[in-house]
Amino acid sequence: MRKLLNDPADLVKESLAGLAAAHGDLLRYDAAAQFVARVDAPRQGKVALISGGGSGHEPMHGGFVGLGMLDAACPGEVFTSPVPDQMLAATKAVDGGAGVVHIVKNYTGDVMNFKMAAEDAADEGITVESVLIDDDVAVQDSLYTAGRRGVGATVLAEKLAGASAERGDDVATVAGIARRVDDQARSFGIALSSCTPPAAGKPIFDLPEGEMEIGIGIHGEPGRRRAPLGTLNEIAELLVDAVVSDLKPDSGTKVLPFVNGMGGTPQIELYALYGEVDRLLRARGLEPIRRLIGSYITSLEMAGASLTLLALDDELTELWDAPVHTPALRWGA
Amino acid sequence: MRKLLNDPADLVKESLAGLAAAHGDLLRYDAAAQFVARVDAPRQGKVALISGGGSGHEPMHGGFVGLGMLDAACPGEVFTSPVPDQMLAATKAVDGGAGVVHIVKNYTGDVMNFKMAAEDAADEGITVESVLIDDDVAVQDSLYTAGRRGVGATVLAEKLAGASAERGDDVATVAGIARRVDDQARSFGIALSSCTPPAAGKPIFDLPEGEMEIGIGIHGEPGRRRAPLGTLNEIAELLVDAVVSDLKPDSGTKVLPFVNGMGGTPQIELYALYGEVDRLLRARGLEPIRRLIGSYITSLEMAGASLTLLALDDELTELWDAPVHTPALRWGA
Repeated sequence: MRKLLNDPADLVKESLAGLAAAHGDLLRYDAAAQFVARVDAPRQGKVALISGGGSGHEPMHGGFVGLGMLDAACPGEVFTSPVPDQMLAATKAVDGGAGVVHIVKNYTGDVMNFKMAAEDAADEGITVESVLIDDDVAVQDSLYTAGRRGVGATVLAEKLAGASAERGDDVATVAGIARRVDDQARSFGIALSSCTPPAAGKPIFDLPEGEMEIGIGIHGEPGRRRAPLGTLNEIAELLVDAVVSDLKPDSGTKVLPFVNGMGGTPQIELYALYGEVDRLLRARGLEPIRRLIGSYITSLEMAGASLTLLALDDELTELWDAPVHTPALRWGA
Repeated sequence: MRKLLNDPADLVKESLAGLAAAHGDLLRYDAAAQFVARVDAPRQGKVALISGGGSGHEPMHGGFVGLGMLDAACPGEVFTSPVPDQMLAATKAVDGGAGVVHIVKNYTGDVMNFKMAAEDAADEGITVESVLIDDDVAVQDSLYTAGRRGVGATVLAEKLAGASAERGDDVATVAGIARRVDDQARSFGIALSSCTPPAAGKPIFDLPEGEMEIGIGIHGEPGRRRAPLGTLNEIAELLVDAVVSDLKPDSGTKVLPFVNGMGGTPQIELYALYGEVDRLLRARGLEPIRRLIGSYITSLEMAGASLTLLALDDELTELWDAPVHTPALRWGA
């Protein structure tokens, strides 16, 4: 392994401790209950937003805790769901009396554990609304998922629902914003390499150089097919085709393309990819008016990229522009 | 190669076009003269700040063009110096009559070409101050360098001198800030893998798994020695030792540690590394009051990390906190 690592069993905890040491103005790390929360949570009367899932996708989710985004994040071990006790502890820690929204990526373990936590929280009198994110158009069912997987739209939902909560919306409205993002977003990704989970010490799948996995999941789940590695322009076409043909936006729709790196693809390539994606979207009559480019939902050091396309409306655009101050996303603050 | 790529000869241009398509509110790409400049440059009476160098280190430098940082960036091909005509064209394009500061990383090609551009600009009546960045304590001379190499301090100098220019300082003051950053900063890096320049199509050096190159340069230049891969804590100690023993800050000094990823090291590892670096600095009586963590000066998809340590003073801290709005660094704006 080519990794900066002590004992692999300590990596997640060490990384969260480092995150808190770096961004103590924004968040604190509860090492006993294993969650990260905003330093100013709970805020009385504000809906709290929580997400979580396996680690290895950083900056998601811990890097999105802060003003205008998440109130807490519950990280599991690498590529492993957090347990219900984490979500319950986080829910109780950040509830300000106005209810809590759980943003849950559609993986069987995450869904089950967030459901148990929501039920336990309800028993303690906390209102919880759960929103399922399932934006990956690659496959219907997958290794860890019934239905579509939740990927890049999660980042956008956390930003937009976070802005909704920050402006004082009630719990149904905040959850509604997250659901609207999931409804109006589609994602598709490709991998050029595997990644190596630290505890396993070996790649999770075998992908020879010169091939790509089309429709890859963020834990290396198989996609639609394997094919010879295409050119950047061919890959851009493939990504745009996959999301546009499924989302079917009207001509003239204002969109937010999110070109995401899987972790091991350098920025010089991501921006070249964005340039071609932007051109292809415009050629199809769509209008990119906002965008996000970078490695925000990753698979450790996997090489590859995904495209998430979100159809915007005036309200989502306004929520996108609202201030955010987290370790990984920051503007207007 | 595991790369998103059309013709390797087009990658730099395609990436810059994508950068401009994504961030047209901040910068424009002059494809003929091959530079990126702020959309609002030249600004009359404001000192202009320019940097440049080989590509493959993104987001440096194009990602640092915008409010409070660079007025223009001149990218060469991957790991290749830009030519004097680029710097001259950029200098003329962004000069607002108050002079121009060139921030030059210490590599022989960059130094020579920036010098020629500065002389030509002077012939045309433009005041140019050049600042050399040479913060890498690893080796005295190197593959492309006489003296110390310029690495992570470049990012900090661009931010801090950019803030100085933005608040209206004159050309000597802005250059003085950049020189002070170079004086007060030291860097040291290690690599866990090579990277593959697109045009070459093969790794620039051979590093077997389980070994690390200690004191690596950002173009794969050899460091001090090669050794078996240490643990994260051992590597943190090695990085902190290297920079602190050279900078020799007084106990109690306020510092800004910059933990930088080389491109292929995921964020989960960078934050774990930051946690240990923060602890070691405090154990030595230093006080981290600001920090930067992320992949800001990269070597394509190289795995590895570097530490830059900057001794702060009140003025540098104030300049660090000043608003910045670029594709890669943004706060307060």
